[in-house]
Amino acid sequence: MSLQECIQIALGQRPAALAIQHVRVFHLATGEWEEDTDIALDSQGRIAAVGRGYDGVEVVPGKGLVAVPGFIDAHMHLESSLMTPRNYERMVTAYGVTTAVCDLHELANVVGEAAFDYCLQASQAMAMSLLVRISPCVPATPLETSGFTVDAQCLRRWRERHPELGLGELMNVPGVLNRDGELMAKVEGASFLDGHCPMVTGRALNAYLATGVRNDHESSTLEEAREKLRRGLQVLIREGSAARNLEALLPLMTLENSMRLGFCTDDRNPLDMEEEGHLDAMVRRAIRAGIPPLVAYRVASYSAAQGLGLTDRGLIAPGMRGDILLLSDWKECRLERVFVAGVPRERLFQKGREDAFPSEEPFLHTVKCRPMTPEDFPLPPRDGRLHPVIGVLDGSLLTERLSLPADAPGVLPVAVVERHGKNGNVGRGLVRGFALKAGALASSVGHDSHNLCVVGTSPQAMAEAANALRESQGGFVAVRPDGTRVLLPLPVGGLMSQEEGPVLADRLRELHQAARELGCPLHAPFLQLAFVPLAVIPHLKLTDRGLVDVDAFRLLSPGEC
Amino acid sequence: MSLQECIQIALGQRPAALAIQHVRVFHLATGEWEEDTDIALDSQGRIAAVGRGYDGVEVVPGKGLVAVPGFIDAHMHLESSLMTPRNYERMVTAYGVTTAVCDLHELANVVGEAAFDYCLQASQAMAMSLLVRISPCVPATPLETSGFTVDAQCLRRWRERHPELGLGELMNVPGVLNRDGELMAKVEGASFLDGHCPMVTGRALNAYLATGVRNDHESSTLEEAREKLRRGLQVLIREGSAARNLEALLPLMTLENSMRLGFCTDDRNPLDMEEEGHLDAMVRRAIRAGIPPLVAYRVASYSAAQGLGLTDRGLIAPGMRGDILLLSDWKECRLERVFVAGVPRERLFQKGREDAFPSEEPFLHTVKCRPMTPEDFPLPPRDGRLHPVIGVLDGSLLTERLSLPADAPGVLPVAVVERHGKNGNVGRGLVRGFALKAGALASSVGHDSHNLCVVGTSPQAMAEAANALRESQGGFVAVRPDGTRVLLPLPVGGLMSQEEGPVLADRLRELHQAARELGCPLHAPFLQLAFVPLAVIPHLKLTDRGLVDVDAFRLLSPGEC
Repeated sequence: MSLQECIQIALGQRPAALAIQHVRVFHLATGEWEEDTDIALDSQGRIAAVGRGYDGVEVVPGKGLVAVPGFIDAHMHLESSLMTPRNYERMVTAYGVTTAVCDLHELANVVGEAAFDYCLQASQAMAMSLLVRISPCVPATPLETSGFTVDAQCLRRWRERHPELGLGELMNVPGVLNRDGELMAKVEGASFLDGHCPMVTGRALNAYLATGVRNDHESSTLEEAREKLRRGLQVLIREGSAARNLEALLPLMTLENSMRLGFCTDDRNPLDMEEEGHLDAMVRRAIRAGIPPLVAYRVASYSAAQGLGLTDRGLIAPGMRGDILLLSDWKECRLERVFVAGVPRERLFQKGREDAFPSEEPFLHTVKCRPMTPEDFPLPPRDGRLHPVIGVLDGSLLTERLSLPADAPGVLPVAVVERHGKNGNVGRGLVRGFALKAGALASSVGHDSHNLCVVGTSPQAMAEAANALRESQGGFVAVRPDGTRVLLPLPVGGLMSQEEGPVLADRLRELHQAARELGCPLHAPFLQLAFVPLAVIPHLKLTDRGLVDVDAFRLLSPGEC
Repeated sequence: MSLQECIQIALGQRPAALAIQHVRVFHLATGEWEEDTDIALDSQGRIAAVGRGYDGVEVVPGKGLVAVPGFIDAHMHLESSLMTPRNYERMVTAYGVTTAVCDLHELANVVGEAAFDYCLQASQAMAMSLLVRISPCVPATPLETSGFTVDAQCLRRWRERHPELGLGELMNVPGVLNRDGELMAKVEGASFLDGHCPMVTGRALNAYLATGVRNDHESSTLEEAREKLRRGLQVLIREGSAARNLEALLPLMTLENSMRLGFCTDDRNPLDMEEEGHLDAMVRRAIRAGIPPLVAYRVASYSAAQGLGLTDRGLIAPGMRGDILLLSDWKECRLERVFVAGVPRERLFQKGREDAFPSEEPFLHTVKCRPMTPEDFPLPPRDGRLHPVIGVLDGSLLTERLSLPADAPGVLPVAVVERHGKNGNVGRGLVRGFALKAGALASSVGHDSHNLCVVGTSPQAMAEAANALRESQGGFVAVRPDGTRVLLPLPVGGLMSQEEGPVLADRLRELHQAARELGCPLHAPFLQLAFVPLAVIPHLKLTDRGLVDVDAFRLLSPGEC
C-alpha cells in the first residue's frame, strides 16, 4: 500500500497525509538550501515527495522555518537517562532526537537477558526509533560481580532470534587482545558491532579492529580520534553528563571527515537535558565554535545514519522516515516543531498509549545486600603510608592513578558493595576528587555491574547512605552530617525511575545542591561516583572485588601501590 | 581462524601472510597521507593491520609508492565488455578494478534466469569481487520481443534463494509511474535496488524514488545530477564506450558531495579499455581537471562502497578486503602493482583455475532468425514525405526525434530483426548519424532484447550483414560494397566472445576502421547501433515491433511522424 500511495502522492494524484508547506530544506547530502518547498508525507509517516505544490489532508505551514532531519544519538544507555522508555521518548524528542542506539547493558548486568526483551518490546511501542543492541560484555570484566552473565551461548541465541540487532559496545579490549575464546565466539560473524576502546592505539588498535567493530565513542583527545578515523572507525563524539568530549574534538569536524563522524550522549541525565539540551546543544555549540553548519547537522543525523547502516533516515528526501525538525533559527538550532515518523510530537503522548509498553514490575526488587554497619567501612590508618588513590577528573570517565597517604588533602574512603545477593563482597579504596567535608554520597548505579558505590567522610555516614539505598531499592542519596537525606529512588533495577524527566531533573538538582553543600565540586557527582567501578576505562578503578589496574587489567594485591 | 590470526598479526605475534612495507597510504576517510608505513595482510587476504614495523612471510617493498583501495565499478554489464568473466577479470584488474556490480540483464534477455546462475558461479571462481544483481526488467519494456521474460514469480524465487543479492537497474520508469502491478510486486521489499532514470525530474522523480531505488547512473547534465543528489540518490558518474558523462558532471565532484558519488562504466568495450583505460582513466582525468585527489580517489572506491552498502572495502584499514593498488604516480593514477583480495594480480591467472568457471556451452546457439533477403529491408520511397528519424548523437545514448524526408542527407534505413525464434518480426525505420556512404553494419547486440540491428546503404548489403551474424551466431559485422566483411563473432548468447580482451580490442579496431572507411564518424559505431533499440532511453528508438516514442512509452503508428 505504501509504495502505491507514495507514487500517487508524489505525482499529485492524491493529497499527502501531511504536507509541510513553503519550508526551506537544508539538504545534508549536498549542502544545498532548497527554498520555499513542500514535504509530502504518506500515511505511514514516510516522506513521499519533496518539491513545490504538494497538498495534504493535514497541512503544516513552514514559512520562515528550516527543515532538517531528526537527530540520531548513535550510542546511549537508556538507564543513564534514569527514565523508562516512555518517559525517555517524551523528553528527548523535545530536543529533536528521533533515533537512538540503545545498549541496555546496565539493566542486563542486573536482570540478565530479560533486559533485551524489555527494551525490544518498548521499542515497538515507541514512535521514535530505539535501536536495541545485544550487549556482548555482561559483565564488562571478570574483575567484578554482576547480577547476571550473558555468555556466548545466550548471545548466539539472541543473534539467531534477532539477526537484525547489532551487538552493543565491545568493552573487553584485553579479552580481544588475549583472544579470549568466549569473547571470540560472541563477536565472530556479528552483523554490526559497536566499539569502546578508550586510549587504545597502535598495534592494539589494529588488533581490536579485527573484531569488525565499526565505531567508537571513547576518544577524549584529538590525536586519539584522528588515529581511529584513519584506521576506519566511525568516531562518535560524546557529550554525556560525566564524559564531555565535544570541545576537545571540535577540530575533527571538517568537511573531509564529516561523513565519518556521529554524535552520542552515552550517559546523559535529565538534569543536563533540561539545563543544556541534548544533541541540539551539540549542534549549537559546534556552530558557535565556527564549524560549518553542513558538518554540524550532518554529524547529528546523516553521517550517524550512514555509519550505522541506516539507509532510511538522515535526509529530507523521498523514501526517508518522516523524522523532521522545523527550526526557527538554524544557527542556534532552535526547534519550533518536531515530527517523529511523520507524527507531530505533541500528538504522540496521548492516553492509552502506555498499555503497549512493557511492565517494569519484574525489575523492582534488585538491591539484595545485607544491612550495612559502620564496621563495613573502616577508615584506613592515617600512618603516612602511601596507598593507591583513584583520581576522579571532572567531566571525564578516565581516572588518574595516584599514590597518596590516607590523610592527604581531599582523599576519602570509597567502597563498592555487592548488591545482587551473590557474595556480600565489599571492595574498599581511596578516592580524590569528591572533596566532601562531611556526610556521604551513595549510588546503586555503579557501572557496569551496578553494585552500591559509597563515598563518605565517616563510616557512620557511609553505612547510612548504603542502607538508604537498600531501603529504597536503589537510587542516589546524599546523607548530611545531621543524618537528614536527599534521595532520588531508582527502583527499576536500581537504575531507573518511573517518574518523568522534569521530576527527575528537579530531584537531581536537589541532590547536586546537597552534594555541593557537603563540599563536592563535581558537575555530576553521582554519575562520577557511578563510574568509579567501571574497570574498562583507564586507569584505576574499584569493584566489589577490590582495586583494578585497568591498564594491566588485573586486581591490585593488598598493600600494592 | 581469521579473527585469531588477524589479532596475532596486528600485535606482531606472528608475521603477516603478506606485508607491503614502507609505503605511503592515502586515507580516503580523512584525506590524510600516512608516510612510510606497512600494510599487513592475513592468509585470507584481509588487511590485518596498518602501521610501522610489520613483517610478512612474503614482503612487498612499497618505498616510493602510494597505496589506495581497489576501484569499484558501481554499475556495469559484463556483456558489454564482450568478455566472459575469466577474461573480464584478467583485463579490468590490470586497471585497478577489484569490485564490479554486474547486472547481467543482457544475457538474461537471451537465455533467461540461467544467466544469473552463470554469473553467480563465475563470481565464486573469481578473485575480484563481482556482485551479481538480479535484473527486474527482462525484457526492459513490453514494446519489444526478448528471448526470455523474468516475471515477478521468477524474481521472487531468486530473492528468496539469494536475499543477499540486490536487484539490477529498474529501467521501466513508466511502469513505476503507472503502478504496474507486476513491477510493484518485483520491487516491493527489495534489499537493494539500482536505479536508471534518465531525464526523470520533479514529481516523476519523487514517484520513482518511492520504489527505494538507491542510485542512478543516467545523469547526462549537471542540473539533472544535482536534483538526483538532492533527492537522496547516489549519483554514479558513467564513462562507458557510448555514453560519456564524466566531463559534464565534473563540477559535481566536490568535497561536499564526494560521499554521494561513484564511478561506473555501464558499457565499456575492450578497445576503449586498452586505449584509454578504465576507472583509472576517470581518476586521471578528474585530477587533471582540478578535482581534489581525495574526491577523485574516494569516488572511485570508498564513496561507491558506502553507497552500495559494502562495509568491507574502500579503505586501507584493518578488516578491509586486501584490494590494494600501489601507484607510482598518484596524480596520473599510474598503477605499479595491484592486489586482489590480498593476492598479487600477476599470480591470479594460473593454469587450472579455469575449471572453476561455468561453461558457456549452453549459450552458444541463440541466433534463431530465418535467412534474410534484400526484400526484408526495402528502401522507403524517396517522395519528399516526412518520416520520423532517429538522430544518433556521438557519445550519448539519448537520441533525437527528427522529422525528415527519406532522402535527406545522412539518413539511412535501419532495421531490427527478431532473433529468438519467436515471431520473425522486422522493425524498420530511418536513422541519422551513422553517415555510411556504402555497405552496412550489423550487430546481434541490441539493447536490451538483443535482436539483430542493421543499418546500411542498400537492401543487399543489409541482408548480407544480417546473414553474416546468423552464420556466426552473433557478433559485429561491417559489410563492404565489394561484399568483403570484417566480423567479430560473439557466439556466447550473441553477446560475448570467449577470446581475451586484447584480441577483441584488435578486432574492434579493425571493425571501427572498416566502419570509418564506409563513412561512419562515430567513436563507437557498433555500440551506438546496439543502443538504437533501447526503448528506455529517450527519445526515439526502434525495436523489432517498430518505432518507439520513449517519452510517451508507446509504439508509433504507421505513417505517424
